[in-house]
Amino acid sequence: MSPSERASRVQGLQKLFAPSSVVVVGATEAFDKVGGRVLTSLLEHGFNGAIYPVNPSRPTIQSRRAYASLGAIEGPVDLAIICLAANAVEAQIELACRSNVGSLIVLASGFAEFDAEGAAMQQRIAKVAQRHGIPLLGPNCLGLMNGSIGLMASSTVSMKGRRLRPGKIGFVSQSGAIATFWMDRLIALDLGCSKWVTTGNEADLTVGDALEYLVDDDATEIIGMYVEGFRESSILRRAFANAIRRRKPIIVLRSGRSSAGAHAAASHTGVLSGEDGLYRELFDQFGVCQVNSLSEMLDVSRVFLTQRPIPGKRTCVISLSGGAGALIADAAEFSDLSLPPLTERLIAGLRRYFPAYVQLGNPIDLTTQIIVDRQLFERTLEAITTSDEFDTIFTFMAGRAADLLQDVGTAMAKILPRWRGNYATIWQATTTNFLDELQASGVLVFGEIPEAVTAVARAVRIAQRWSEPVPDSFPQARGGGPFHTLTEYASKAYLKSHGMLHFPKGILVRSADGVDVALRNSRGPWAVKLQSGQMTHKSGAGGIELNLPTPDAVRDCVAAMLRSARLRQLECDGVLIETMEDIDLELIVGLRRDPVLGSYLLIGRGGVSVEIDGDVTQAFLPLKAAQIESLFSRLRGYALFNGYRGKPKAPLGELGRTIESLCEFFLAHDDIAEIEINPLGVCAGGRIVAIDSTIYAYTREPQLSDAPRGE
Amino acid sequence: MSPSERASRVQGLQKLFAPSSVVVVGATEAFDKVGGRVLTSLLEHGFNGAIYPVNPSRPTIQSRRAYASLGAIEGPVDLAIICLAANAVEAQIELACRSNVGSLIVLASGFAEFDAEGAAMQQRIAKVAQRHGIPLLGPNCLGLMNGSIGLMASSTVSMKGRRLRPGKIGFVSQSGAIATFWMDRLIALDLGCSKWVTTGNEADLTVGDALEYLVDDDATEIIGMYVEGFRESSILRRAFANAIRRRKPIIVLRSGRSSAGAHAAASHTGVLSGEDGLYRELFDQFGVCQVNSLSEMLDVSRVFLTQRPIPGKRTCVISLSGGAGALIADAAEFSDLSLPPLTERLIAGLRRYFPAYVQLGNPIDLTTQIIVDRQLFERTLEAITTSDEFDTIFTFMAGRAADLLQDVGTAMAKILPRWRGNYATIWQATTTNFLDELQASGVLVFGEIPEAVTAVARAVRIAQRWSEPVPDSFPQARGGGPFHTLTEYASKAYLKSHGMLHFPKGILVRSADGVDVALRNSRGPWAVKLQSGQMTHKSGAGGIELNLPTPDAVRDCVAAMLRSARLRQLECDGVLIETMEDIDLELIVGLRRDPVLGSYLLIGRGGVSVEIDGDVTQAFLPLKAAQIESLFSRLRGYALFNGYRGKPKAPLGELGRTIESLCEFFLAHDDIAEIEINPLGVCAGGRIVAIDSTIYAYTREPQLSDAPRGE
Repeated sequence: MSPSERASRVQGLQKLFAPSSVVVVGATEAFDKVGGRVLTSLLEHGFNGAIYPVNPSRPTIQSRRAYASLGAIEGPVDLAIICLAANAVEAQIELACRSNVGSLIVLASGFAEFDAEGAAMQQRIAKVAQRHGIPLLGPNCLGLMNGSIGLMASSTVSMKGRRLRPGKIGFVSQSGAIATFWMDRLIALDLGCSKWVTTGNEADLTVGDALEYLVDDDATEIIGMYVEGFRESSILRRAFANAIRRRKPIIVLRSGRSSAGAHAAASHTGVLSGEDGLYRELFDQFGVCQVNSLSEMLDVSRVFLTQRPIPGKRTCVISLSGGAGALIADAAEFSDLSLPPLTERLIAGLRRYFPAYVQLGNPIDLTTQIIVDRQLFERTLEAITTSDEFDTIFTFMAGRAADLLQDVGTAMAKILPRWRGNYATIWQATTTNFLDELQASGVLVFGEIPEAVTAVARAVRIAQRWSEPVPDSFPQARGGGPFHTLTEYASKAYLKSHGMLHFPKGILVRSADGVDVALRNSRGPWAVKLQSGQMTHKSGAGGIELNLPTPDAVRDCVAAMLRSARLRQLECDGVLIETMEDIDLELIVGLRRDPVLGSYLLIGRGGVSVEIDGDVTQAFLPLKAAQIESLFSRLRGYALFNGYRGKPKAPLGELGRTIESLCEFFLAHDDIAEIEINPLGVCAGGRIVAIDSTIYAYTREPQLSDAPRGE
Repeated sequence: MSPSERASRVQGLQKLFAPSSVVVVGATEAFDKVGGRVLTSLLEHGFNGAIYPVNPSRPTIQSRRAYASLGAIEGPVDLAIICLAANAVEAQIELACRSNVGSLIVLASGFAEFDAEGAAMQQRIAKVAQRHGIPLLGPNCLGLMNGSIGLMASSTVSMKGRRLRPGKIGFVSQSGAIATFWMDRLIALDLGCSKWVTTGNEADLTVGDALEYLVDDDATEIIGMYVEGFRESSILRRAFANAIRRRKPIIVLRSGRSSAGAHAAASHTGVLSGEDGLYRELFDQFGVCQVNSLSEMLDVSRVFLTQRPIPGKRTCVISLSGGAGALIADAAEFSDLSLPPLTERLIAGLRRYFPAYVQLGNPIDLTTQIIVDRQLFERTLEAITTSDEFDTIFTFMAGRAADLLQDVGTAMAKILPRWRGNYATIWQATTTNFLDELQASGVLVFGEIPEAVTAVARAVRIAQRWSEPVPDSFPQARGGGPFHTLTEYASKAYLKSHGMLHFPKGILVRSADGVDVALRNSRGPWAVKLQSGQMTHKSGAGGIELNLPTPDAVRDCVAAMLRSARLRQLECDGVLIETMEDIDLELIVGLRRDPVLGSYLLIGRGGVSVEIDGDVTQAFLPLKAAQIESLFSRLRGYALFNGYRGKPKAPLGELGRTIESLCEFFLAHDDIAEIEINPLGVCAGGRIVAIDSTIYAYTREPQLSDAPRGE
């Protein structure tokens, strides 16, 4: 998309989300008809702009002047909501585009999710809108809401009798139903909404577009998202990066993560979900918080509504109950927070309030002293919040005693909302009234321990990501489609010709006759590998022999392999003879393309153990050497890289730089589908050698004219 | 404990939990005093037995005749509740024991949790009670409740204004506070309680005793438990096994699982928590369900209150929303349930109710057809429940429309509680009233997806365990304390002398001179290993050389090792020379003792990779060969055992039998702290050879007189 196209797109989205004038095509009186419901919703939630009902058969609808057709409206129209059945939509879209409306919403179902004819219709309306540069939301969606201007451009029945309120949280959803469930929770929590949008079949606008708009939108400070899968990811990654810069948390609930769920999601919105691990990696890399339910999403949202989370894991627990304190300590440690001991200074300060028999530790157990000393809680909380020793505090309280509620509740409301760090307070076995009051005073309250700790820990991770560098290039995803497998020799030759990597000394022979001459200046032992594109796994299939000590042994082996290949009628380029390397450590390095999520690097412990142990990790490109270096520490077997049992440390810096070059090379070569180096060996003296490599290419000869072809 | 001791213990516990007569020592008028609260609680909750207040300074307490002393009461006393401060307790315990009371509760704190003097007092009162064979609950506890007879023998303030109701759920807790939070939830859920007991400092009765009682108790059908750690595990394991036989689920919340939590728990009740993985294994092995919060505990409890769970993973999802259906599918698959497709027969049956454009799959998406056809839900549910194709059903519904609530709610109440399988229904965005009514009609309802799926999946796992064999021996845990490390040679000689395992051919030499003669009838290559108890890791420390091809090389190596040992002043028994084996697969087999949880087997992939990959699993003894065989399938690298890449399959049956013998041997030899075989090699031809082994023994010579000492 060119900058001017982008600018006009942004303008179009502004008209969609914040229109000054709205047309309801197919407006009716009855609330049980879509066109009636949409008009009522527009009228009832405080929208101040112009509202034009369109209905050819009536002069007024819901006491408003009705227009016979979209074309009959005089003033400009920012948004046209098409409330007609699928088969009537196309004509109205064409009319709307000719009438120069600013944006479109199509609510009807019966398009791509229905049948082939519907899919064709959907494609046609999308094309018309796109040709006119008019953004189209839907079809098969519930529309959108804008809490800031009381705009309810939606056919949902779920807001009946309820009021759309402004607020700081926005929600983007591929499912209309899930979006209404989210809104129901929001209202139950007495919270308002900035923007709410359902993207349905995504004929034109996708969750990526909607997300990008919400990240830019000043009214939206927290973003929730329900997705089943993405159609394209570069816009999402740009939005994720912008959200980091603007310090807006993005919290995502994704379905289709398991195979059964993926199947269900695909039949629901027709989006293929792709590999869960890659989504997780993409989210992690951009600090997008993935949750397992709407409840968890709203838990995290509430953290950001009550505080400005800071990174840092030093956690203090203050508890009325020793047992609850221990449970919080467990949950915190499992969530990657830590409970450092209180310093001597802090203990000395607290000791003034606690009798000598109370052991002061972390968790701080308030013991029955809290009944004796009505100021104990406030003093303790004051001491901890002013100590600079902690980033996060969890308090646990329980009970109905009026004194306790009064003393502790007041102290919390006074201290916690003003504290510079993160916190949550957990209350059990108390009254709903008290909890409501406490929340109304701005204190973040939970009823259960793991929920509280998980939500705050997630906020800490998001804040942590905010303190790290933000990528500034978002390469379009490419890939998919059939590809060809290059032989090892061709793969290595290609990489070598581009100055990538170092390889064992090797030579390709086409018969056993050449071996003696070829090895004259070479030193054994040697590896011998048959070069055939039809043989994917050389080991286990007789296509590889290692540690051959003499040229004679090599010659015999070459002869045997070629004979066997002939017998099995394998197409074969020859046999590769290489000097064996003395390998200290084996890595796997892969570069792959996910057709939706983009190009990524896979690194891990190499050799045959990859399939068994799967000790690998992934990260999306582009990646700098330092980032690659830090990926190694994610591996289970990181100790092996760090001088395990007296072995030399792996040259991580050098590995990072080597792999960075390979990543750049891969990004620059679209015709390569995948590169796999396995093993990449760290050899004697720290030399990095690509022992085996395979290139998968979309063309049979990926710009290979420049690659030497062996012998 | 002898059978007669056990019988009298059971009798004592019966008097404790279900007394006919209760004495309140230290009874007062005031509710804010412990003695007043306990008496009020006994009087107000419907307890029908005799109640004797004891107070030396008043003729009546709370309008009841008061006794001057415990000794002044005439009739028999089943339970004496001591409500006095710590320093007054000891005298009353002595008096109570002399007066022949049936059981004792001590509520006061100020004992072992307080200081050394308190610990000594606690030990004394426990001794007195134990000498008289009178069970004592506490001190530092909140007592117990028996919902079946309205007995509230507790000092908790949390029941003020509430009524103790009979019910099917029991709760055992090491923390009084956690027990009150549990009770608060139970009351909020409108459920009753069979037994509720807090064990406090466990001077005499432990959670194990209480659990055993609840498992035996006919009124208790579901058992919840909060623990920080166990003092002894054989009674627990017996109770776990009994619970399996009696089909009673045990659901446990344990704190002290992380290092911070363990520290917190230890300072709370003084119980050392031990290794989390071992607890998890113990719970798994006995089908005890471990949860992360009281909410989760009550979620699982509610499953058992509404249905009789069956094993089986075939799950069907019926959903109003495609998105929610996909989320449930994910949660189900992550919880180890599976969503098989509907059969053709079932689809044909359902097709009568669904229009042609609806794709019928699993999840079943009800689509908007549910609005068109008011009987759609009932028909669908009827078809699924009568199909015999599924063990578990999740339904997802949402909305406030009166028609929908009526139709679907009625169908659920009619069909689900009578179904033979497991189910949960999830409702979102509806009214609280409707949910309350639905629950009152016996339907299991949740508000959120992961909670519902997790709870039902846990119930399925419990039911699964019920269908498997129950162990019938519960060996006492032994172990702890210092131990000695035997050299490899001594370890192997000891095992060999007991007919355990096969070893490589080997010989111990004390100087290089003997090597040539020793190897005369042996075939290389050889391994050479220094035998020193001071050297724990031979590899990486110059204590091992492998693959020596000739006797000369062996001799030189032996000489060098002995020289190096002398220089380093290592105590050394000599050098072990062994024939190298051709190993297909390396295992680690360990036998260890946890001083609390008992003896256990550890198996996994062996060699040096153990430390890096930790691909190991554990199980408590006793174990049969078939159970050991099935342990291998838990390993990440199970494929390696199953004929990976053309290698022969590992002889799992033979391995199971070999390891079973070793387990029996270990159980029979208390003087051995630990046995480690690493690697246990599966060698050419499937021979199982213990390549390296170490014994750790409590005595320097564990009955080694019968072991040949080499040469």
